[in-house]
Amino acid sequence: MVTFFRLIVTCLSLLFICEGVQADVLPSWNDGVAKRSIIQFVKDVTDQANEAYIKPEDRIATFDEDGTLWVEQPLYAQVFFAIDSLKSRAFQHPEWKNREPFKTILSGNLEALQKLSPKDIEHILAFTHTGMTVEEFHQQVSNWLEKAVHPRFKRPFTELVYQPMLEVIQLLRDNQFDIYIVSGGGQEFIRAFAEKVYKIPPSHVIGTASKVKYEYRNGHPVLLKAPSLLFVDDKAGKPEGINLIIGKRPVAAFGNSIGDQQMLEWTQDGPGKRLELLVYHDDAAREYAYGPNSTIGTFTVVLMDEAIKQGWIVVSMKNDWKIIFPWQATNP
Amino acid sequence: MVTFFRLIVTCLSLLFICEGVQADVLPSWNDGVAKRSIIQFVKDVTDQANEAYIKPEDRIATFDEDGTLWVEQPLYAQVFFAIDSLKSRAFQHPEWKNREPFKTILSGNLEALQKLSPKDIEHILAFTHTGMTVEEFHQQVSNWLEKAVHPRFKRPFTELVYQPMLEVIQLLRDNQFDIYIVSGGGQEFIRAFAEKVYKIPPSHVIGTASKVKYEYRNGHPVLLKAPSLLFVDDKAGKPEGINLIIGKRPVAAFGNSIGDQQMLEWTQDGPGKRLELLVYHDDAAREYAYGPNSTIGTFTVVLMDEAIKQGWIVVSMKNDWKIIFPWQATNP
Repeated sequence: MVTFFRLIVTCLSLLFICEGVQADVLPSWNDGVAKRSIIQFVKDVTDQANEAYIKPEDRIATFDEDGTLWVEQPLYAQVFFAIDSLKSRAFQHPEWKNREPFKTILSGNLEALQKLSPKDIEHILAFTHTGMTVEEFHQQVSNWLEKAVHPRFKRPFTELVYQPMLEVIQLLRDNQFDIYIVSGGGQEFIRAFAEKVYKIPPSHVIGTASKVKYEYRNGHPVLLKAPSLLFVDDKAGKPEGINLIIGKRPVAAFGNSIGDQQMLEWTQDGPGKRLELLVYHDDAAREYAYGPNSTIGTFTVVLMDEAIKQGWIVVSMKNDWKIIFPWQATNP
Repeated sequence: MVTFFRLIVTCLSLLFICEGVQADVLPSWNDGVAKRSIIQFVKDVTDQANEAYIKPEDRIATFDEDGTLWVEQPLYAQVFFAIDSLKSRAFQHPEWKNREPFKTILSGNLEALQKLSPKDIEHILAFTHTGMTVEEFHQQVSNWLEKAVHPRFKRPFTELVYQPMLEVIQLLRDNQFDIYIVSGGGQEFIRAFAEKVYKIPPSHVIGTASKVKYEYRNGHPVLLKAPSLLFVDDKAGKPEGINLIIGKRPVAAFGNSIGDQQMLEWTQDGPGKRLELLVYHDDAAREYAYGPNSTIGTFTVVLMDEAIKQGWIVVSMKNDWKIIFPWQATNP
């Protein structure tokens, strides 16, 4: 009798588990090609009976960050950080008031800031991102993230992550994928919060990296961030950075701009079933709408043509996503 | 009655498991300070009740390769590979017969080869390690490893790994440590066999890296190994490379020469309990005995003094290891 009762309990448990598996794994996604393609991909490559099956150790998925996992407008979060860092040092530099690009930066004029040249931005980043130890830099970024607020959404930047993409990460993680961030942004900048925000450890953050220098301070070894770049993890630099740090080709890649094209190409050119996806920002009401004309997260007509030609999934934020941010969830 | 019988079986199983846990986890090590220190370290940092407890995600262990995990005398395996690569191309270059360093290399005179300058070796490595795709290079290394034989032991290089160190890796792995190779040798060279020989995937191999260039060949993207170095993963380059690829400080580090000193220092300077170990090659009969006078795997008097001062474990191959290689095991 006890055995029979146990059997019933086991069957009920199994039914319950099966029910769980069939629940909506991407609840913030509207039904459509994008959602179905992602789910089908995961189903196919994890099914040992399917010819598309991929062994767990080869399930590498790479995600761009700015514009793919979190908001990148009106400026990259990292540029806001650099601006605030400069501002906090301005009292020591009265001469900045009349010197560019410092003058523009201290003005706080968003439109003028958006027009800063890549050279100016590089200069500011070098100035604010080097000369301290890696640990000190992480602390600076953490401190900034705690108090910085996005100019439009009036929320911390770490709350401006895309809920639908968090669900994709979770779905892949639940299916034994190894998740990497592959960003044109600074590796150490992202490392400062990726574990907390995305559960992605430092070893899984690939980004533009400055050289570090092993030195001694008061008898203790430190790693100093030096004012020269080791490599730029953007465009062709993305597959190169993936090779350096992962050493395997991804089977799924997620991006949103011309900076991600080579990563998607590289992913697609491997054998077997692959997934390539681009987030398209077409939702001015809930987030931003931008494309070829934005210098931040540029999505050219050529990239769109390429995506269509190659069969890459293009996600319309407006149509594919029920909500944008985690705090908009009605059933959190 | 059935239940009682089950209880007995369960108890017996548990006893058997407990017995298993107390089995010798480092069977190729003689009892001594080194063996006891390793076992005690693992016990302490994995015991939640111990103040030395380390969370699984922070259990990072780094191993030098040449001279720490496998034989590095009379020349590094990678240099043997480069020499054989050059030899196989010599028929296309009759002029090499009278040009140094090619003349020395083609002579095969081991004593002369050991005297090649670092600059000559760098030149040979650049010549034989670049100009092909990363995949092609891996294939070349694999092909070479299949037929190459060590001049003294007359066995493939991949069989000249140290059984006692394999046991340390396994012990750490069984206790949820994340195992990395951190070598002055070429990252891609080691990646070509690390998964097969050590079960260490490409993402866990840190080494000296040449730049790679993303290009197109016949309409397909490839990663070409370029003839310039991205970084040298030796001495101060080891903690720098660890930061780049792991982004966390190791809690255990294993080496055998002056190239590993900074990695051990960096490991030790972190908070909490740490393990630092140096393999000392003092066994001419079973392997090699070398120290300050060898340009390969140099172990200076200064390093020995430092090891003693800092409390680093110095392993005597002669006294601490029952066997050196896996194929010497009497009970395989």
